[in-house]
Amino acid sequence: MSEPSTLAARYQSGDLRALARAVTLAEAGLPAARPLLKSARAGGIRSVVVGITGSPGSGKSTLTDALISVLRAQGKRVAVLAVDPSSPYSGGAILGDRIRMLRHHADSGVFVRSLASRGALGGLSARTMAVLALLEGGGFDWIILETVGVGQSEVDVAAACDHTLLVVTPAGGDGVQAFKAGIMEIADVIAVNKSDLPGSSRTVRELTSAQALGWHDEHTWLAPVRKTIASAGEGIESVVEAVLKHRAHLGDAGLQERRRLRAEFEVRSLVQERLLRRARNAGGDLYARVARGELDAEAAADELLSGP
Amino acid sequence: MSEPSTLAARYQSGDLRALARAVTLAEAGLPAARPLLKSARAGGIRSVVVGITGSPGSGKSTLTDALISVLRAQGKRVAVLAVDPSSPYSGGAILGDRIRMLRHHADSGVFVRSLASRGALGGLSARTMAVLALLEGGGFDWIILETVGVGQSEVDVAAACDHTLLVVTPAGGDGVQAFKAGIMEIADVIAVNKSDLPGSSRTVRELTSAQALGWHDEHTWLAPVRKTIASAGEGIESVVEAVLKHRAHLGDAGLQERRRLRAEFEVRSLVQERLLRRARNAGGDLYARVARGELDAEAAADELLSGP
Repeated sequence: MSEPSTLAARYQSGDLRALARAVTLAEAGLPAARPLLKSARAGGIRSVVVGITGSPGSGKSTLTDALISVLRAQGKRVAVLAVDPSSPYSGGAILGDRIRMLRHHADSGVFVRSLASRGALGGLSARTMAVLALLEGGGFDWIILETVGVGQSEVDVAAACDHTLLVVTPAGGDGVQAFKAGIMEIADVIAVNKSDLPGSSRTVRELTSAQALGWHDEHTWLAPVRKTIASAGEGIESVVEAVLKHRAHLGDAGLQERRRLRAEFEVRSLVQERLLRRARNAGGDLYARVARGELDAEAAADELLSGP
Repeated sequence: MSEPSTLAARYQSGDLRALARAVTLAEAGLPAARPLLKSARAGGIRSVVVGITGSPGSGKSTLTDALISVLRAQGKRVAVLAVDPSSPYSGGAILGDRIRMLRHHADSGVFVRSLASRGALGGLSARTMAVLALLEGGGFDWIILETVGVGQSEVDVAAACDHTLLVVTPAGGDGVQAFKAGIMEIADVIAVNKSDLPGSSRTVRELTSAQALGWHDEHTWLAPVRKTIASAGEGIESVVEAVLKHRAHLGDAGLQERRRLRAEFEVRSLVQERLLRRARNAGGDLYARVARGELDAEAAADELLSGP
């Protein structure tokens, strides 16, 4: 166990072991992480924070890997946070993580970490946001947040990151499905991965024309659609360019706002966790009383919010 | 405008216009709905509440339609609640709704309603739970909750309903994807729809063997996998049977617990809405201060929970 002050000093000097320890503290929600977090946040915007989302099988992990290689070749330091909030079953993130760990083991410009922590509502947790802040404070040029799992995590990624990269494949009408499912609205950049498969040009066309259908004016950001073959490293530079183009579009005010949204997500998740505790302390019966019509749902909400 | 007392009496007598009005009041969160809700809940468990989930394009709407026909032929009264919390773009629910409206217009045993209300966290809202309770109080034998959209709504459906019916198709390795995405864990019954397409038997096999992989003992419910062709009305009775089998498995205690979970969801959503209001009243700066490292996220959570 290091002294917190020593840990803070080592963390601030960019020591990767100290960062790893800080991340562990933050992930566990331990108070020792709080001063580190504060100093990390006070450092302002230093990292390009990209969230990668897309259905399982679209090749998110492979694309992340390819992004690491391209960014390292450009001399950037890259941190990857792989989060699997959905299920103890689907070990995809953990596996991909280990493979990358091995590959980039000797490279001090790459930091990879898996988080299994699940938010109070099933998506990303407050801890994830804290870890993102620590990575930014650790001086990484790019931070890639890769989630495995469905649902809430996709919405959460958009709240947590500066840029959301949606990965689709030409197969199974993925593009149209993304549009129908409302996912396209959270995408800042779209990669049509596995674009050596048949139908990739059609998928690009469908996505582009779907965008054109929505309301937009000259200030609206229409997510650039890029073909990639992540397994062969093709099209990756073009994705990096598209992300940086979106960054320029956001501007400083836009980036500050994204940071604010991340903080909001973190605070709201913490509030949620505490409310869960209060509900447990109120006795397991609060909700049963509502279910039986004995207590009004509004009255139950009052009770929770006035609780100790 | 009816007098609330008259409305309550008409609602309790099973008047469909009064029900429609009650649903409108509940959806708007108006206090006039509260006595109706209380009496609806006091009536106990009267309906089989089934949530239908699955990726867009899997045929959820068509399957809902087919279920209505089968259940009506069995003399059951059926209410359908179509919810699209994800996006103002994807008008699927509304369209499917209108088609059903036309088809079942003259049938007083079918009640169809669309809700567009979005929860504070993007999924189903507290209002949806209230409407479900009103439909149950309205004496429907079956209530089908059909969601369009991605993500949080899938998790929410499982929290809101007695039985979750997952719809997959043989195309695109849907079954394996559902497994990887952790969706299979919330399914109580699985329909492999469009099973006239190639690969349906393989999909059934994949799903069944994926289930066998997970931990289970003789008390674990393994979701029955049923082939359907909803557009031709094939396999629907078998889905109804599987739902009722799951209902027997839950037993009275299990069903009470599901009701409790629904109430919990409603109360928590209401709490969330109020916290959003508090955060706005605290000034838009609370989260910005956290983002700049001036205020600890934990301290901000304290501030929100102690607010007026």
